[in-house]
Amino acid sequence: MSEQLIKHFARFVEIKEADVPAILSYFQPIRLAKKESLLSEGSICTSNYFVVKGCLRLFFVNEKGVEQTIQFAIENWWLTDYLAFQNQQPSNFYIQGVEKTEVLAISFSAQEQLFQQFPHLERYFRLIYQKAYGASQVRIKFLYDYSREELYQNFAASYPQFIQRIPQYLLASFLGFTPEYLSELRKKKRA
Amino acid sequence: MSEQLIKHFARFVEIKEADVPAILSYFQPIRLAKKESLLSEGSICTSNYFVVKGCLRLFFVNEKGVEQTIQFAIENWWLTDYLAFQNQQPSNFYIQGVEKTEVLAISFSAQEQLFQQFPHLERYFRLIYQKAYGASQVRIKFLYDYSREELYQNFAASYPQFIQRIPQYLLASFLGFTPEYLSELRKKKRA
Repeated sequence: MSEQLIKHFARFVEIKEADVPAILSYFQPIRLAKKESLLSEGSICTSNYFVVKGCLRLFFVNEKGVEQTIQFAIENWWLTDYLAFQNQQPSNFYIQGVEKTEVLAISFSAQEQLFQQFPHLERYFRLIYQKAYGASQVRIKFLYDYSREELYQNFAASYPQFIQRIPQYLLASFLGFTPEYLSELRKKKRA
Repeated sequence: MSEQLIKHFARFVEIKEADVPAILSYFQPIRLAKKESLLSEGSICTSNYFVVKGCLRLFFVNEKGVEQTIQFAIENWWLTDYLAFQNQQPSNFYIQGVEKTEVLAISFSAQEQLFQQFPHLERYFRLIYQKAYGASQVRIKFLYDYSREELYQNFAASYPQFIQRIPQYLLASFLGFTPEYLSELRKKKRA
């Protein structure tokens, strides 16, 4: 399970074989059942999560009590509530397994120790966050610029494997649709 | 002008006095007139920009030819199109001075050299991006969750200095309003 994380590090920075056990000692493996939670609104956001297998989602519950998904993370993606993580404060979000999911968790204090012992891993996370932040700029552009239908078409073209994998009601929530509207769009696309 | 950047680095990482000239040698000062551009759609996004004085905005031009602002950056903020910068590709965005603005620019290749010579600056950028990415998660939540009026109230409460400083038509564009709707909201608030 942990080999995959080391492989992902090694795509961006050099990892010496001898350092692997020390690096991994900062991470804790967690196995989640479908719909099991890693983080709940109001709880301190203690950890950052690397998805080894499966899929996580980040969502909030709006005033009407409806769950609104704003992010998914599949294999090799990191997910947490980054402001709450950085400040070690209560989160406004939930993180839950979409399916049976395996993650490697690193707590805030363990992450600081990891960086002290292996400062070159700062580069790995700098690159990961730079890319994630860049992707969020593009996403915000889409939220301003695209109609709901265009959002769906763009998402389906960019992430075809997601469309197959994610339950329809979660995909609808992510795109800000009702499940009925999404079902109409899909029929339209097939027609 | 460059002292401010060093001070900002020093908030997050240790900077030795003796290293300052070498660090600064990677940056190029640029003075922008109001509405002068740093980046245009279709151009390679060569550089990352630190605002010393003034204000930048990131925007795109939609199908109707309307400028849609999605980000502002004032003193001590960094701004670029991060995906286009990381990939050294043409941007879908424009970056322009909102007012007379002074920035320090670092090109992609200069940034790589800076990290080679001063690897501990990776930590500075890791922290900056982690925070910016976290803020974008919260922003995406607001875009899903808030009515237009709530977006304005939240923005006015969080960034009162912005409301004073940014021209009304740009603020309206940022919030996805017409200038007329923003003017109504402001009257309502004063009433």
